[in-house]
Amino acid sequence: MKKKIVALLVAFTFFLTACSSTKEVEEKPILLQGAMDVEVETMTNALEEKEELHLGKYIYYKGTIDDYPVIVSKTNVGIANSAASTTLAIEEFDPMIIINQGTAGGHDPELHRMDVVVGEHILNMGAFKTDFQAEGEGVDPAAFELRETEVLTKGKGQATEVQEFTSDETLMELAMEMQDSYTAGHVVKGTIGTADEWNNQLDRIDILHTKLGTSAEEMESAAVAQMAYNYSIPYLGIRVLSNTAVHDEDFEPQSAVDLQEYVVEIVKAYISEQK
Amino acid sequence: MKKKIVALLVAFTFFLTACSSTKEVEEKPILLQGAMDVEVETMTNALEEKEELHLGKYIYYKGTIDDYPVIVSKTNVGIANSAASTTLAIEEFDPMIIINQGTAGGHDPELHRMDVVVGEHILNMGAFKTDFQAEGEGVDPAAFELRETEVLTKGKGQATEVQEFTSDETLMELAMEMQDSYTAGHVVKGTIGTADEWNNQLDRIDILHTKLGTSAEEMESAAVAQMAYNYSIPYLGIRVLSNTAVHDEDFEPQSAVDLQEYVVEIVKAYISEQK
Repeated sequence: MKKKIVALLVAFTFFLTACSSTKEVEEKPILLQGAMDVEVETMTNALEEKEELHLGKYIYYKGTIDDYPVIVSKTNVGIANSAASTTLAIEEFDPMIIINQGTAGGHDPELHRMDVVVGEHILNMGAFKTDFQAEGEGVDPAAFELRETEVLTKGKGQATEVQEFTSDETLMELAMEMQDSYTAGHVVKGTIGTADEWNNQLDRIDILHTKLGTSAEEMESAAVAQMAYNYSIPYLGIRVLSNTAVHDEDFEPQSAVDLQEYVVEIVKAYISEQK
Repeated sequence: MKKKIVALLVAFTFFLTACSSTKEVEEKPILLQGAMDVEVETMTNALEEKEELHLGKYIYYKGTIDDYPVIVSKTNVGIANSAASTTLAIEEFDPMIIINQGTAGGHDPELHRMDVVVGEHILNMGAFKTDFQAEGEGVDPAAFELRETEVLTKGKGQATEVQEFTSDETLMELAMEMQDSYTAGHVVKGTIGTADEWNNQLDRIDILHTKLGTSAEEMESAAVAQMAYNYSIPYLGIRVLSNTAVHDEDFEPQSAVDLQEYVVEIVKAYISEQK
């Protein structure tokens, strides 16, 4: 009879443990994101004690860097995928900070391929309202204003509207302090424009750069920032110019690798400050 | 001693029950979506045994219509919000079908305010790649092709690409069969264009309509279809023209109410077929 009680107690304890969340007693992880395999592989390789996880249809790698918990997330491409995979990750991992990084197309003529933009401003560049123009009046490509984006900081579907997102000041300064670890190009603060777009009309790129101040364009940063804002989680957007239509510089995949190595150095510096 | 064993067994059973999912034994619910309060209130009022739920920062109303489980979801506005709230809902509720509905701006000059578009085609209208145009060549507003969208039907971050989404054939035919229950305008099959955009340049609207076949524009359908595709869940996109720049018809909030009443009739017909 005693054996049965012991067995029952063991089973009971097991189920109690299985039921309870261990989030509270663990350090909150750092969430690092990239959209494509080439944009996450270098970070994934930097993980110790690595294991593969799935949330929904998305893939994540859980591990440690310098004994601190880090999740590398492949968000897949675009606004919808990155919003969904970020929200699933926030709900599951309750991350301390989120760093979204990857390749981008250059807008600012002062920047070249391999230069890095630290996202002081992040815009949903595809969210706009155009001015009325009548039939036959043509399409003035500069006759638009950005629309505000709904963020849900209050929860329960209650929205406030923001004109733009910004990276967390501390993370941005840390990235700038660590810029000597990036030797493939310059590192500047700038504006990341997000849309599911690939622009190749130089006059349109000039309008986006002149009117909105965009340094570079890509397809995830603003969506991730929006979800990070929803939960008030510090966020850093950081992008490398992998190609520029402005300077006729084609896509260079090494840019994705070099940026991730720089991001890992930023992460190590961040972890060092936590200890 | 016996009392302790019984108490332990009761507690053990309680925790086993708390741990196990009851999803398998319940009917899969119907998920109905709208972006704004005015786009969900009529459907929410149609629910019996209603309770308010939250997933992440989003709000949902769980209840029944004709004794069948139905969730009404306020997705909030735009691609990122609707993708996130849809994915959270799919993971939590495992819905049988998803109906995304709401207001839209007209593109097709043959359609007027209050007409309804059943989404035979749903496009991520903001996902495009422009042709190269050199500095000083201007911006040809028609010089673009739609980009393909990554869907994750295989899971584990493995993407396939689709050029467009379509509504489920059975749900679409059911909507067409039930069209007599909608008396405020015409009901037609058509193409819903999704982007975080509000277009008012008539020549641009004409390009979108002529080149892509868009009947109307709005900000959620393609993102929801993309998430439904990820899980192979039958999806219906259905939109009412609340305003048209083409005919200078201003926003009419009653359109949101009338469409929801029509959608509730479609849902009742669907439930009737399940019994």
